[in-house]
Amino acid sequence: MTSLPAGATTDDPDVLDAYRTDRATFCPSGTPRALVRARSLEDVVQTLRWAHEHGVPVVPQGTRTGLSGGANALDGCVLLNVEKLDRIVEIDVEEQIAVVQPGVINATLAAAVAEKGLYYPPDPGSKDISSIGGNVATNAGGMCCLKYGVTGDFVRALQVVLADGRVMRTGRRTAKGVAGYDLTRLFVGSEGTLGVVTEVTVALRPATARPLAAIAFFDTTADACRAVADHLGAGIRPAALELMDAATVAAVNRLKDLGFPDGVGAVLIAQSDAGTRAPEELAAFELSARKCAATDVIVSDDPAEADLLMQGRRLAGLSFEQYPATLVDDVCVPRRNLAALVDGIERIAAEYGVLIATCGHAGDGNMHPAVLFDHDQAVAAQQAFADVMRLGLELGGTITGEHGVGFLKREWLARELDEAALWSHQQIKQALDPRGILNPGRVINSTATGRTEVDQRSF
Amino acid sequence: MTSLPAGATTDDPDVLDAYRTDRATFCPSGTPRALVRARSLEDVVQTLRWAHEHGVPVVPQGTRTGLSGGANALDGCVLLNVEKLDRIVEIDVEEQIAVVQPGVINATLAAAVAEKGLYYPPDPGSKDISSIGGNVATNAGGMCCLKYGVTGDFVRALQVVLADGRVMRTGRRTAKGVAGYDLTRLFVGSEGTLGVVTEVTVALRPATARPLAAIAFFDTTADACRAVADHLGAGIRPAALELMDAATVAAVNRLKDLGFPDGVGAVLIAQSDAGTRAPEELAAFELSARKCAATDVIVSDDPAEADLLMQGRRLAGLSFEQYPATLVDDVCVPRRNLAALVDGIERIAAEYGVLIATCGHAGDGNMHPAVLFDHDQAVAAQQAFADVMRLGLELGGTITGEHGVGFLKREWLARELDEAALWSHQQIKQALDPRGILNPGRVINSTATGRTEVDQRSF
Repeated sequence: MTSLPAGATTDDPDVLDAYRTDRATFCPSGTPRALVRARSLEDVVQTLRWAHEHGVPVVPQGTRTGLSGGANALDGCVLLNVEKLDRIVEIDVEEQIAVVQPGVINATLAAAVAEKGLYYPPDPGSKDISSIGGNVATNAGGMCCLKYGVTGDFVRALQVVLADGRVMRTGRRTAKGVAGYDLTRLFVGSEGTLGVVTEVTVALRPATARPLAAIAFFDTTADACRAVADHLGAGIRPAALELMDAATVAAVNRLKDLGFPDGVGAVLIAQSDAGTRAPEELAAFELSARKCAATDVIVSDDPAEADLLMQGRRLAGLSFEQYPATLVDDVCVPRRNLAALVDGIERIAAEYGVLIATCGHAGDGNMHPAVLFDHDQAVAAQQAFADVMRLGLELGGTITGEHGVGFLKREWLARELDEAALWSHQQIKQALDPRGILNPGRVINSTATGRTEVDQRSF
Repeated sequence: MTSLPAGATTDDPDVLDAYRTDRATFCPSGTPRALVRARSLEDVVQTLRWAHEHGVPVVPQGTRTGLSGGANALDGCVLLNVEKLDRIVEIDVEEQIAVVQPGVINATLAAAVAEKGLYYPPDPGSKDISSIGGNVATNAGGMCCLKYGVTGDFVRALQVVLADGRVMRTGRRTAKGVAGYDLTRLFVGSEGTLGVVTEVTVALRPATARPLAAIAFFDTTADACRAVADHLGAGIRPAALELMDAATVAAVNRLKDLGFPDGVGAVLIAQSDAGTRAPEELAAFELSARKCAATDVIVSDDPAEADLLMQGRRLAGLSFEQYPATLVDDVCVPRRNLAALVDGIERIAAEYGVLIATCGHAGDGNMHPAVLFDHDQAVAAQQAFADVMRLGLELGGTITGEHGVGFLKREWLARELDEAALWSHQQIKQALDPRGILNPGRVINSTATGRTEVDQRSF
């Protein structure tokens, strides 16, 4: 007879309540039956064995910084939190890899490898609070992804506990390997619906030079978008190329005076970590910006100044919190449609009478339009949010560039994927989690979870 | 009632015979019932619909340059050859992507995008004869992968025909996207066992400078391996870092006099496409090589000379064809175990009385030991081949870095993967190809293919 791991499990309602949600807006959260704070692989195995036997849904959680409701509680579920599995198991300098548990914070890993002259590039906006396990679950991106790639590009191997509690290793420590299906990449981005990740082997790179940066101001976002295309068309791969629209600049200005001119139409920030070639790259950026009608361009001479130039972009998220409520989107479009996306978002904001501040990873075409609204505008905000996703799809893009589907966007996944792709999702989910206990109803609308079979006395 | 596409299908025994095999050694090939040379998506759809209805195994083929028997005929199968689907559909310079049909030759695509100032990095040794579809099926690598990544790192989207003939799109044209499971990466490297790829959207990079190169000579492979570690430890990412052992150099010397000194123990070749920084990178390589007891180092001044330095490495494959028979392996180990791998291979060669010439992508730890033998040594050659894979696994590596499992290594896959991973493979195969008609018995040992149900009169 299995049981939940006694020492790691609680059913204290106050504690459960504190773990019920991630950071998504407008996502329901149910009442969990228990919280397991796993401190060992064995805790995870035991939890899944028990849940599998009893047909109880399990919601895997890390530090719950997700923005799509994928870690919110389901009624009667076990919350399986792995944030205490937070050990950096190994940093292998010669092989340029690290092995970490899923609860390690992104910035903690980045700092630890930096001390050894190495670099872990994926840098989601949440890097100071989000865990590697969560980054893997959503295949998180960030600013540096334009040059270096997203989380999945750095995952070499996983240890995963399957729905029935069996432990599986995927991938390998080697730089290359094609023995069998790419299970590693299948589990990356699967948002806890196929298994629970308990160890991650990541590839590292040699440390780069501290970045320099340049900032350009434009009268219109269209000009800024043209500058993005012009700069990338010149064959440069900047370490970041970030856009802020007028509403974002205004929100940041309200939070802190960084000297952004009032009434600016758009801001573009480029970063280069190319060392001795950084000034050359930033000069090329300045040229592109001026060619596209930039009203001013400031190029940093040293890394400290560069850091200051990036500060406005980094404060965008915080600046949105001055508003009563926010709903952050994550559409990604082909770069040539970036201007059409930003224009369309302005139309949508006007139509629904809400404010939408748009900023994001312009070099990747990945924007984070944030609907900023009063509580009595909740319906309009959600309609605007939906229209932004619809627009992203119409422009040949995707509903999510890096945040994931979770609960928030699962209805929209069916609009993005064709029927055969949806069928493949369901088949794979059914094949690897036949009882449907792993984060059911997230990503894809799976079938019933067998909750009715639950033996209430088991825990 | 379905039928095979009349205009594209032949059952002429002479033609069938010509299409029965890829380039693997020691892999059986059966007698196909028919060959479909698809010229349209519809031909592929119709073939799979028919095969699915009748439970007939289908072996997808490109230009049949594979080295693991994955494209060899099975008794009674339909060979579904897509080499005539060879159109470059689109090169989008602004988005830096190309859309190609699977039969496009790797080098053809590379040349076409180069004309537009772009670069498609994956460069398998077979690049002049292998197709993008085959590269995708095996997740092919190459020399440039050390710096740029393998085929899968450049695949953004696929059009795939599923086992039952339904057409599916995976992925997207955008730089990023996490909507749903990463079906693209699941199909990359699946060797025709999950679906037939009919269109590939690849990411491109801006063109790089024509590479410069340097060559270093050593008395022992151990010295050369230390130089690899030293060079990469210095934070350089060369565009290629290739090793040739003494037996490889001897084989090349027999083919063509390139001025390689007789009796050299090992050769290391580094390539840099870093433009103005290339001389600096190659100077660092020379430093590492001399530190590790290189007997001589030659650094090229210009791209034409660099090309000459690479010629020896490029001729390795051809030089092996001077021997009566060859069996090329593809193990990949953690870089620190490279010297142990090469040493162990020498011991294995001595034990079985065969010649093994080892060369490959030292920077990735991916070696191609080639067993060179007389026809009466076939048993010894296969035993030596098996021992090399065993050694690779013992050293923490994989049985295949870039060639794939196919038929040749399917028994070995079960040694590399754990039980849960093998189970996951079987579940996924069963989920996406329930009748088991797609390249059955390749990669994984799947169950019976339903061949007994075949209606012989259907074709």
